[in-house]
Amino acid sequence: MSQAARQALHARWSDIDAAAMRRGRRLKWTHHDGDVLPCWVAEMDFPIADAIREALIEQIEVDGVGYPPLPIDPRLREAFVQRQQARYGWTVDPGAVYSLVNVLQGVDSQILLHSEPGEGVVLLTPIYGPFHQAVDGAGRLRIESRLVARRSMDPSGAPALHHEIDFDDLERRLDSAPRPPRLLLLSHPHNPSGRVFTRAELERLAELAERFRLVVVSDEIWADLTLHRDEERSPHLPFASLAPEIAARTVTLSSATKAFNIAGLTVAVAVFGSPELKRRQRTLPPHLIGHSGPLDSAAAITAWTDPRCETWLGAARSYLRENRELALGLLAEELPAARATTPEGSYLMWLDCRALELGEEPFDFFLREARVAFSDGREFAARDDDAGRGHVRLNLATSALLLEQILRRCGAAVRRRR
Amino acid sequence: MSQAARQALHARWSDIDAAAMRRGRRLKWTHHDGDVLPCWVAEMDFPIADAIREALIEQIEVDGVGYPPLPIDPRLREAFVQRQQARYGWTVDPGAVYSLVNVLQGVDSQILLHSEPGEGVVLLTPIYGPFHQAVDGAGRLRIESRLVARRSMDPSGAPALHHEIDFDDLERRLDSAPRPPRLLLLSHPHNPSGRVFTRAELERLAELAERFRLVVVSDEIWADLTLHRDEERSPHLPFASLAPEIAARTVTLSSATKAFNIAGLTVAVAVFGSPELKRRQRTLPPHLIGHSGPLDSAAAITAWTDPRCETWLGAARSYLRENRELALGLLAEELPAARATTPEGSYLMWLDCRALELGEEPFDFFLREARVAFSDGREFAARDDDAGRGHVRLNLATSALLLEQILRRCGAAVRRRR
Repeated sequence: MSQAARQALHARWSDIDAAAMRRGRRLKWTHHDGDVLPCWVAEMDFPIADAIREALIEQIEVDGVGYPPLPIDPRLREAFVQRQQARYGWTVDPGAVYSLVNVLQGVDSQILLHSEPGEGVVLLTPIYGPFHQAVDGAGRLRIESRLVARRSMDPSGAPALHHEIDFDDLERRLDSAPRPPRLLLLSHPHNPSGRVFTRAELERLAELAERFRLVVVSDEIWADLTLHRDEERSPHLPFASLAPEIAARTVTLSSATKAFNIAGLTVAVAVFGSPELKRRQRTLPPHLIGHSGPLDSAAAITAWTDPRCETWLGAARSYLRENRELALGLLAEELPAARATTPEGSYLMWLDCRALELGEEPFDFFLREARVAFSDGREFAARDDDAGRGHVRLNLATSALLLEQILRRCGAAVRRRR
Repeated sequence: MSQAARQALHARWSDIDAAAMRRGRRLKWTHHDGDVLPCWVAEMDFPIADAIREALIEQIEVDGVGYPPLPIDPRLREAFVQRQQARYGWTVDPGAVYSLVNVLQGVDSQILLHSEPGEGVVLLTPIYGPFHQAVDGAGRLRIESRLVARRSMDPSGAPALHHEIDFDDLERRLDSAPRPPRLLLLSHPHNPSGRVFTRAELERLAELAERFRLVVVSDEIWADLTLHRDEERSPHLPFASLAPEIAARTVTLSSATKAFNIAGLTVAVAVFGSPELKRRQRTLPPHLIGHSGPLDSAAAITAWTDPRCETWLGAARSYLRENRELALGLLAEELPAARATTPEGSYLMWLDCRALELGEEPFDFFLREARVAFSDGREFAARDDDAGRGHVRLNLATSALLLEQILRRCGAAVRRRR
């Protein structure tokens, strides 16, 4: 039954083409000229789960859109706590779960609360552009340690390219900062590479956090979208679940919006791992953060608790896994000189295009010559930094049909150039 | 036709009873015990306009709930600008309109931007409780000037009780503040009294703002819900519309959520009257405020532009006007010693219950003895201040049937006490 439901969803998603997508007003499909195929902003081209659609409509029809329970719907809090326990074995105190409008608000507010203007904030780059904006916008300094791309093997024995933390570099930067930083921003699973950091890596990172007394803000919005097979356990490990003393220095950010493709709903949570972290949060002006509405909470609660959403998520994960293989195969044919990460989580693939020798930034080249809109790699690092320059981020969350068109267009554009 | 539509809405709203309301999960109706009649939190018991319901469902069905245009949907901005021009003759620069999740976020953020911890912020009390929380929560000091209740006449010649600004008191407090305050928070139309300040009052307030170099945050969320007759012009005058030099020191906050009963949608706007006010706003961390989602914006755009919403609003205003008269009549019978304001805007009535000599706070008395939940007057002023003590706020936005039950219960409880 669940298998039949999955196949039905896959069949429906495989029919998605550009004409269908362009009939709507989605940001992803309206931001560029009408002949451009978009693979930039992190949302999926798949329709949302029926269960979420029905929950939204029921909320509108039955209860309207009046004030929700404040400051957080207790059912949302409970759904999050139970899900973390069931999926990741992470025990969360419900009283530690606070409401956010989105996870970036959590990043921005924790920077305010745990650093001073002019202080450094640690980033592992490349990293999602708004993290850079958050540090810059608050007048803090970025302390960037670059991840290193290493060839390895994925669990099935296939060759893979993964981003890993360069601990020697990170330690050196922490040691040599003129003023000791107090905050590290983690994207885990990692945007833009799709890396899911291992227990060994997270433990080593935790050791450094302890030694340098860092508060870690762990953005785990991609956690439910890991690309393991159904028979395997999720590779995601919440950073705060490592040990109580690690939890005590961690603010975990999460949301149903990425895994369930409801990015436009204003709902997320922050988990504060110690009374002191909670106390700090409460020093913010009381209404600065705002709150989720009843539609936002209804959708997130349904996403996290309805069995039909579990089926939908399983279908999405398996479709994305197939798209990952499809993309790696197409890249080998169309852009053999590009180096692509093998995402273990998310639907993001990070493409190092430097060996293509395009003579300009790949984002600009592909937009003009292939009419394909990637996310520009320069947004994920300092502008003058090779961590971002020469790279683009590919969004795999579309139909196999469109994914193939996107990568074929890119290959043709590069061949025309020669 | 519009008249027929209005009558149909009135007929539908008149059927609303407690059993119907208790079938849902609305905050207003679930916060207290099941036998309590609620007239507290500021939302209406009327279902939302069909046009808004349809716009929400269309957004869900056609375009999903993905990323909206950021930082603000240009159609929302345009709808606001055109509405202010058409209704109030106020010309707003679209580039001055910023997105907020709700108006309180605007209050909290402007306090951060225009005052320092330990500085005073000016409030005209009684005033909506979260304004007090905002000042306290940011570690600022409240400088409270109490409004005075004066007997006057409403336009039809009926006796009325209105809150007015005590300019002598306000000036004295501004003059004598040990450190000159830089910010005044205005609720206009005024929550909890329903007062719509006149041009003469606003101009005098503007003079003081000029003289004392105050930034004025004018929360005008109730503006569209003034209770004038259809043949009259709205008495609401945007504070920033007084003069360009006044606009230059004003941050106006607005939202469709109150007038159209969509309080649970996360959508509001702030209008910055000068480049300097805008520049300050942009010093906030870039994602701290968050943003509205596509459902929020779709509902607000529809509310502000769809002719059916205009019909709905006209029906709401006339129903509330009738409820105001009904309440004043019932109060004269049931609680003749209470003094009630005559709201010119909003569906809020401020009841001075001190002459009832209840021997305790009226909120506590009526909740226990009448099983009626008002808003507690103490939330609208400092706890030890007669501006709030001895008062309750009555929400008129329910069926005439329920409004009568509420006030009859209160009268019976007071009579039983004797």
